Amino acid sequence: MEKTLAEIAHIVNGKIIGSGNITITGVTNIALAGEHDITFAVEPHLQEAENCNAGAVLLPNTITDFAKTAICVEEPRAAFTKLLEVFNPPLTIRRGISEQAFVGQDVKLGENVSIMPFAVVDDHAIIGNNVILYPHTYIGQHVKIGDESLLYSNVTIREFCQIGKRVIIHSSTVIGADGFGYITKDGKHSKVPQVGNVRIEDDVEIGAHVGIDRATTGSTIIGQGTKIDNLVHIGHNCEIGANNLIVAQTGIAGSTIVGRNVTFGGQTGCVGHIHIGDNTVLAARSGPISDIPANVFYAGFPARPHQEWLRNQVASKRLPEMMKTIRDLEKRLKKLEQDKC
Amino acid sequence: MEKTLAEIAHIVNGKIIGSGNITITGVTNIALAGEHDITFAVEPHLQEAENCNAGAVLLPNTITDFAKTAICVEEPRAAFTKLLEVFNPPLTIRRGISEQAFVGQDVKLGENVSIMPFAVVDDHAIIGNNVILYPHTYIGQHVKIGDESLLYSNVTIREFCQIGKRVIIHSSTVIGADGFGYITKDGKHSKVPQVGNVRIEDDVEIGAHVGIDRATTGSTIIGQGTKIDNLVHIGHNCEIGANNLIVAQTGIAGSTIVGRNVTFGGQTGCVGHIHIGDNTVLAARSGPISDIPANVFYAGFPARPHQEWLRNQVASKRLPEMMKTIRDLEKRLKKLEQDKC
Amino acid sequence: MEKTLAEIAHIVNGKIIGSGNITITGVTNIALAGEHDITFAVEPHLQEAENCNAGAVLLPNTITDFAKTAICVEEPRAAFTKLLEVFNPPLTIRRGISEQAFVGQDVKLGENVSIMPFAVVDDHAIIGNNVILYPHTYIGQHVKIGDESLLYSNVTIREFCQIGKRVIIHSSTVIGADGFGYITKDGKHSKVPQVGNVRIEDDVEIGAHVGIDRATTGSTIIGQGTKIDNLVHIGHNCEIGANNLIVAQTGIAGSTIVGRNVTFGGQTGCVGHIHIGDNTVLAARSGPISDIPANVFYAGFPARPHQEWLRNQVASKRLPEMMKTIRDLEKRLKKLEQDKC
Repeated sequence: MEKTLAEIAHIVNGKIIGSGNITITGVTNIALAGEHDITFAVEPHLQEAENCNAGAVLLPNTITDFAKTAICVEEPRAAFTKLLEVFNPPLTIRRGISEQAFVGQDVKLGENVSIMPFAVVDDHAIIGNNVILYPHTYIGQHVKIGDESLLYSNVTIREFCQIGKRVIIHSSTVIGADGFGYITKDGKHSKVPQVGNVRIEDDVEIGAHVGIDRATTGSTIIGQGTKIDNLVHIGHNCEIGANNLIVAQTGIAGSTIVGRNVTFGGQTGCVGHIHIGDNTVLAARSGPISDIPANVFYAGFPARPHQEWLRNQVASKRLPEMMKTIRDLEKRLKKLEQDKC
Repeated sequence: MEKTLAEIAHIVNGKIIGSGNITITGVTNIALAGEHDITFAVEPHLQEAENCNAGAVLLPNTITDFAKTAICVEEPRAAFTKLLEVFNPPLTIRRGISEQAFVGQDVKLGENVSIMPFAVVDDHAIIGNNVILYPHTYIGQHVKIGDESLLYSNVTIREFCQIGKRVIIHSSTVIGADGFGYITKDGKHSKVPQVGNVRIEDDVEIGAHVGIDRATTGSTIIGQGTKIDNLVHIGHNCEIGANNLIVAQTGIAGSTIVGRNVTFGGQTGCVGHIHIGDNTVLAARSGPISDIPANVFYAGFPARPHQEWLRNQVASKRLPEMMKTIRDLEKRLKKLEQDKC
Repeated sequence: MEKTLAEIAHIVNGKIIGSGNITITGVTNIALAGEHDITFAVEPHLQEAENCNAGAVLLPNTITDFAKTAICVEEPRAAFTKLLEVFNPPLTIRRGISEQAFVGQDVKLGENVSIMPFAVVDDHAIIGNNVILYPHTYIGQHVKIGDESLLYSNVTIREFCQIGKRVIIHSSTVIGADGFGYITKDGKHSKVPQVGNVRIEDDVEIGAHVGIDRATTGSTIIGQGTKIDNLVHIGHNCEIGANNLIVAQTGIAGSTIVGRNVTFGGQTGCVGHIHIGDNTVLAARSGPISDIPANVFYAGFPARPHQEWLRNQVASKRLPEMMKTIRDLEKRLKKLEQDKC
């Protein structure tokens, strides 16, 4: 791919500083960009960008003076994303059903699907239009997958689960394994049948090695537009709202209900059977152990308001010094008491 | 499936409050249950059950008065589990060996096995009666799998490992990957061969994405009836006793020995080479760093008695206030000291 | 395999205490070793070894007197590793391309490769000499895998990633899934294309269920000789130096740069966009939230010097007692103040 800077300015609806005749062949980050690449910069990286080797830089509209060829746009990051798409067309994916795939009985396949070698679509499954199933995906009995969804290699969707439209699921993720439910009697654990399913709504993206367990009865739900990072665990009967961001290695125990636009920082651990309100942010490694209201920023374990956590961190650092002070106060007080006698 | 309440009362050995003529077609939780469903309730959910839409409710024997059709039983949860099984017969699984599976040389297969498409049973493996291998399972050389065991898609059992009877292993779990063992010399790490295996005893259930590493020499052991949740790591040469519950995202480092009936809360992290006694409970996120006795409830990192952890949490919350008090005491003491002069 | 102790002494370049005529048939740990096994011992396990059932023990050179047949060597652990290799030859692996594997168009295969049933090598991939691909591996388009590398079952290498020589990757690991990158506008998250790749250098070993995400642009890099344990997450655009040890369940967020010979203890969680210096050790469960210098030992969350963390732990344990002391001081001070009046 090759475009002039003028052509690029047109694509991102931006204003050029310098010459529009430069030829651009790649889109990459500041550190790697060479004379035929375009990159982007916002504060505090503007100076770095001014000194980098890129042919051109996408900048915020607010910049008027820059010691390098640039394109000023309303949102440099969004413009950069657009150019990544333009300069990196998606892989060529063969359409059709591989002769080495397995398709069971009473399966409904949409138009233009790609079912790659060694993918398995089990009996009674329904696969929407333009769905792509990479090698070694397993689609269980009675599963439904919506149009345009993309499942990478080794993904498992267990029986009766439902996947929405435009869902992306990365390799080795497991949707609908049995929830962790037992009845214990005399020290022995008997399995509670997990007869519910998982329902993934439209436009969800799920990373690699994520486990979302099927409900005991009813459905475990992942709301529309929610994005889940790698190695996340979501227990049975959780209901996760729309447009959440769930960062890597987070665990959410069973039956927890989460609102819309909630962010879970990495390695968060959340107990079961609680509610978390809309728009709340949980810092990395936080550990909610009871209901969390909407619109708050919580941190720590047990999770508490971030400001409170910060004050505690500051105080905690001074603990050894406090111990010394207390011992000193004791001595001085004892002396005063003795002097009085 | 359709049964009268009288038939259901007979199945769960219970006593009906109200009419036994109601027709029941489903078994589900309080929130989802409609007029032809049965649900269950124990304290503190009795009132909620009285107001729900279920056709009937399973209740504890101790209840005599209830504003809704009900069946009183000794253990409502166990009765509910039984009905889940009755109303949700297992999936129909084709028996036999798929023509698209791969079975190596010198393999012994039991009766009535199900080896699905693209499953691999490598040379010299022994597969018991009624074993089910989902697509994309890999059973390594010389592996032995006991009767009635069920392995979901993408499970790996590496060479020489032994799986007991009635074991359930969920998708993408890996049994017998090499332990993390190296000798470091001049900053370079050389691999220590991991020539032992893993032995999973009868009636164990293992979640999705669990890694149980093979022993350097000898066996890593998972004791009979132990249940393991998703994304758990168990290091080489660990010996886990019978009937443990190991909740999601827990990690147990190598060579740790665990007694019977131990519970690991979610995200617990346990160092290697320690002993944990029988019947002990480790709270979620706890971190044992030395031996833990039997019959205790520990929490925190480093793990300590739960009561001690609680006292510390309470004190820790007051830290900023303590700092203020100390500063105040210092001032007042200084004043007294000066006054004395 | 059967060797005399004299033959073994020759192999490990050691000096025999006792008779060299003993026959050795196995190499195992102290607890399991019987009369025809050899084991090893260093302090503080020497006494245990003197009383064990092993036929012979590998000991440090410094020992001259031992109540058991032994071989003294410079490094007992290294000698033990060598004997593990001698007594446990690797599995027999069929060479060649299985008729049940899938090899795409324009693929270059080296000599003596083993491509097992249901492995997929997608278009334009380059596979080096002696590479072993277990069943259900997926090698994406344009991937390059160096000589002698070994990929276990269910491993995924996504398009354009590069794997060095002698790399070992354990089951279900995913190299090159999309990084977790979105632009959020009006509460909706739009995917940033992840068009970079992952580059794994020579002699790296990666455990089971590891996720190493592809870079947004450029490469996520794992340096030569680095060893990664199970269930580790490495975010997009990280650059991990040579000879690191990254213990199980550690997460490293995107764009973090790590030096050489760094150790991450188990369950470490590291924020993105920081630098960690050479030779640094991060204790288990530590949580770096800003740059960490070279050559230090850090612990805790947020991570701080280990000594400081220890002092804090000690003080923290005394918190409830400190609270009492402060209350007592307050009372006594009040009394002094009143007495003065």
